[in-house]
Amino acid sequence: MKHLFVVGLGPGDTAYLTPQVRSALERSQVLCGYGPYLDLIRGEFPEKEYLSTPMTQELARCRLALESADAGKTTSMVCSGDPGVYGMAGPVLQMAEEFPEVEVQVLPGVTAALSGAALLGAPLTHDFAVISLSDLLTSWEVIEKRLEMAALGDFSLCLYNPASRRRRENLRRACQVLLRHKGPETVCGWVRNAGRAGERCGIMTLDALKDFQADMFTTIFVGSSATRVVGGRMVTPRGYGVKKCGS
Amino acid sequence: MKHLFVVGLGPGDTAYLTPQVRSALERSQVLCGYGPYLDLIRGEFPEKEYLSTPMTQELARCRLALESADAGKTTSMVCSGDPGVYGMAGPVLQMAEEFPEVEVQVLPGVTAALSGAALLGAPLTHDFAVISLSDLLTSWEVIEKRLEMAALGDFSLCLYNPASRRRRENLRRACQVLLRHKGPETVCGWVRNAGRAGERCGIMTLDALKDFQADMFTTIFVGSSATRVVGGRMVTPRGYGVKKCGS
Repeated sequence: MKHLFVVGLGPGDTAYLTPQVRSALERSQVLCGYGPYLDLIRGEFPEKEYLSTPMTQELARCRLALESADAGKTTSMVCSGDPGVYGMAGPVLQMAEEFPEVEVQVLPGVTAALSGAALLGAPLTHDFAVISLSDLLTSWEVIEKRLEMAALGDFSLCLYNPASRRRRENLRRACQVLLRHKGPETVCGWVRNAGRAGERCGIMTLDALKDFQADMFTTIFVGSSATRVVGGRMVTPRGYGVKKCGS
Repeated sequence: MKHLFVVGLGPGDTAYLTPQVRSALERSQVLCGYGPYLDLIRGEFPEKEYLSTPMTQELARCRLALESADAGKTTSMVCSGDPGVYGMAGPVLQMAEEFPEVEVQVLPGVTAALSGAALLGAPLTHDFAVISLSDLLTSWEVIEKRLEMAALGDFSLCLYNPASRRRRENLRRACQVLLRHKGPETVCGWVRNAGRAGERCGIMTLDALKDFQADMFTTIFVGSSATRVVGGRMVTPRGYGVKKCGS
């Protein structure tokens, strides 16, 4: 059997790398991925063969990985975070139909919603929605509709890809959509470089968030109506607090 | 400084335990948690002091952990999955205000949305919402509103706590809400005991899901309108597929 693992490194630091993923990387002859993600593990696995393609060349990268596995080399497609959250699990499985001899196995990792939430406190402890603000592969109309429905459902939100060099205004536009249905004092948080060198985070209101300068290494958290700042942390209660107050 | 770690084990098997969490468990004198979660790690850490409370005694468990840390014993509050997703991170941080000398640190883990998704394929590769169907701490009206908004926003969905011994009908009721806005052929999946002994999963339509017998170890996935079965896996494309078809 020919093997392709699609693995999630977590946020970057090997402290978050699960033993399952480490074992898949060790078993692999070839590690394929976006260059900056491969750089996170190159030091740990110097003897591997490395394959990569530039940003926006995701499909070519999937093909490289599948061809490598199909050639008989056990291969890992390396993603940051979790491969199933805006990662390569989807496109690899779609393309894998062309490579019937390759068995694809997806191995999860700690995605930025979880690593970022842990730094801020517990913003996602109740129901939540995850939305990417990147309009490269999704129309802004779809993004806006989802922001609106998530606001009406009073979900806590985790926003991926709030900005890039080309899309500076998407976070502001998203906040404007949310402000139609959520109070300006809604508790929000930002995390930059979660679980990597240069890790930082902060808490602010939704009103202030619309002027926040996010970059491509930032993850944004928007509270539900129940989210509070507790001891300097962003916390969305799940109802235990209510019970406690009533007891 | 007095330390309390609130840690996520991931799905259960130590293959998913991050080195960061393992290191916190090693540093801790006391491990506190729900008994069945502690049983997952007791063999690895036999020399620790263990504290637990029964199910529904979550606040008493938080107090035990905080008091243990406050007494000067480095303590870990052990959660399955991720402590910030329906876990103890929220209530611990809320109660921690009573224990100003205790520094609480939340350490993320692989939650069932990620481990379950990886088994099924890539159901969450585009925007998604996570909703618990437990109406112990949340009114059914809130749950139903969120299901409805998530359906209108065409999110992929991950449903936690679809059933318990007392709540057998919640998954059926949830499917009935979703069927108001989503087609009966919508691709859905279930995962039981992800990342643990007895791991199983399957794919079915939303129409069939309403008659599915879930239990408390089951996680449910409901596709967006774009979700497809590809090579036997449940896959939600992110737009790459569209590009490919057009090229």
